[in-house]
Amino acid sequence: MTRPDDTAAWPLTDFAARLPQSVPFVGPETLQRQLGHSLDIRLGANEQRFGPSPLALAAIGQAAGDIWKYGDPEGYDLRRALAAKHGCDMAHIVLGEGVDGLLGLIARLTIAQGDTVVLTQGTYPTFAYHVQGCGGTLHRIPYRQDRSDLAQLADMAQRQRAKILYLANPDNPMGLHHSGAQVADFLAQLPQDCLLVLDEAYIDFAPVGTAPVIAPQDPRVIRLRSFSKIYGLAGLRLGYAICAQPLARAFDLLRNHFGVGLLPQVAGLAALQDSDHLARVLAGSVAARARIGAIAAQHNLIALPSATNFTCLDLGRGPEAARAAVAGLAQAKIFVRMPSEVPQNRCLRISHGTEQDLDALAQVLPQILARL
Amino acid sequence: MTRPDDTAAWPLTDFAARLPQSVPFVGPETLQRQLGHSLDIRLGANEQRFGPSPLALAAIGQAAGDIWKYGDPEGYDLRRALAAKHGCDMAHIVLGEGVDGLLGLIARLTIAQGDTVVLTQGTYPTFAYHVQGCGGTLHRIPYRQDRSDLAQLADMAQRQRAKILYLANPDNPMGLHHSGAQVADFLAQLPQDCLLVLDEAYIDFAPVGTAPVIAPQDPRVIRLRSFSKIYGLAGLRLGYAICAQPLARAFDLLRNHFGVGLLPQVAGLAALQDSDHLARVLAGSVAARARIGAIAAQHNLIALPSATNFTCLDLGRGPEAARAAVAGLAQAKIFVRMPSEVPQNRCLRISHGTEQDLDALAQVLPQILARL
Repeated sequence: MTRPDDTAAWPLTDFAARLPQSVPFVGPETLQRQLGHSLDIRLGANEQRFGPSPLALAAIGQAAGDIWKYGDPEGYDLRRALAAKHGCDMAHIVLGEGVDGLLGLIARLTIAQGDTVVLTQGTYPTFAYHVQGCGGTLHRIPYRQDRSDLAQLADMAQRQRAKILYLANPDNPMGLHHSGAQVADFLAQLPQDCLLVLDEAYIDFAPVGTAPVIAPQDPRVIRLRSFSKIYGLAGLRLGYAICAQPLARAFDLLRNHFGVGLLPQVAGLAALQDSDHLARVLAGSVAARARIGAIAAQHNLIALPSATNFTCLDLGRGPEAARAAVAGLAQAKIFVRMPSEVPQNRCLRISHGTEQDLDALAQVLPQILARL
Repeated sequence: MTRPDDTAAWPLTDFAARLPQSVPFVGPETLQRQLGHSLDIRLGANEQRFGPSPLALAAIGQAAGDIWKYGDPEGYDLRRALAAKHGCDMAHIVLGEGVDGLLGLIARLTIAQGDTVVLTQGTYPTFAYHVQGCGGTLHRIPYRQDRSDLAQLADMAQRQRAKILYLANPDNPMGLHHSGAQVADFLAQLPQDCLLVLDEAYIDFAPVGTAPVIAPQDPRVIRLRSFSKIYGLAGLRLGYAICAQPLARAFDLLRNHFGVGLLPQVAGLAALQDSDHLARVLAGSVAARARIGAIAAQHNLIALPSATNFTCLDLGRGPEAARAAVAGLAQAKIFVRMPSEVPQNRCLRISHGTEQDLDALAQVLPQILARL
């Protein structure tokens, strides 16, 4: 073996070598290996604990014998079904390896060195991660009462002549939302040449009217939807974007054309058909939200309003208490996360689990709280 | 709707807006839609027509109920199993969304504007696609007797001070190979600071000794392996890289951390255990190669030597004849491809299908050849 170069960074580009060594999330499997025991109650990744549609599972079973085939690189059937769902032409629909994969491609298509992106400090971190990976500059606005501060975001976008404004609505990790009308007003306040990346991964759990009325051909917005949340297909990696045709076409310049495989395509297509199952999932999530609210009330804690499949539980103390609670729950094999920023890191973020999941939480929580 | 900008390319970066509108492959599903009928005999994408291990299918069935979970972002269990297979530490193993996904990340990690990449003209196109997507400059060397021309490649790498040399061994689309010893000699002739991207997607079909002996910690090489070929899991999107630890760690700077989902991880792990199935697949591929050879002999055509799961059939005429044959076979519902470059485009590239697949080919081919 010959060392080709005496720099440690070889063969990385100068740019890549300077990227921060950060990952968006440490997975629960890593935590399990660190703890030396399992985390049986998974309430930390906002997975959809009631599972996918039986139709999706049947489609996977039926297609499994065909997985020697690559998936259709155009994702034609699924894109057509999504277009029908949204009442638009399928040319507006882009499939991706989860919303995360699409966020990466959006960053690569739109962000050159020094381009500016405005977003909420502490919101879902993956777009910021990808923007850094493209040399973009991030400007962050703190939450205002645990909600994205639309006025300050728009103001910052104007002042920085932002190329992109990223907004998760409803928000993760806080779970709060703005109404569709508020988002539409917000869009009108952005600079004319600023693209709104509207991450609607949790929109199906939100009150009717949370999705703003935006024409698919509106070039100022790209909306993102996930099959990992209401559809319960996180392990398959499937998401999609809705945007104007020129931008939709541009993904073909950079994407991994065969990246969305056969199983996500058939499972996604089947899942779209099962509105009964979605209603059951939604009912389960609503019941879990109520249960978490009741648990909170019992301990004089505040459950934040939630328009998602998770609820933030305000422990009313600082980050050290929240961190201790996360660790204590992990010792009891319960996986939850907490927001990263002051003062949001006073909260636990608890996914809307099954009754059994929340029984386990209700049983352990008093001891955890007593020790804080 | 307000047009935010009068340039058609908004909101793309200047760089993205100048990228060529090319895709590596048009999928057979697109061809089917254009033809208006199905392509029942899929011999065009080098899929592994004998299918995955029953153990992999069982693992998918067992895990399907868990697909509400994200996969382990560290891919720990699968990486550990792959490390054991290769006799190295798991820190040398990087999982990706197929070899294609890894090729994209390699380009992003190593190629800045103007960096040079040397490869064979007409070889597997996806790395070149991603290099263009990063602003790299491509220098191509023609095949020499349908084989990558190692001497010329090394010479060009020296002259251009290439950052990367991409070599598919065995090669796709031609199917020929160099021995491991030849590849090792070739590596020694590359510039000291040139990274060899060694795409070994088809290595499991090649003669023993085709894989060069290269230490996993050798910083001059990154090897790529696929679960889409011998393992028959193309529809799941799974591949991996073996490389020195600093480079392996660097993927964490840019990758889609949850991009390799739950099902690829469990199916890949199970597939690794089933050496009996791999032997059956290999036997099927060898039988198909012999059958294609016999079909060729019957029509006075030449079947090129193959170290892969496909064989190039030399029609002995120019590209127009090959194009007509591809079209004629498609009319008969048989999907094959042809190489892109002169004079390799005198060939049909035929995947090693089942007996029934090749019966269909044998039946139709005489009429196709008669019409050329």
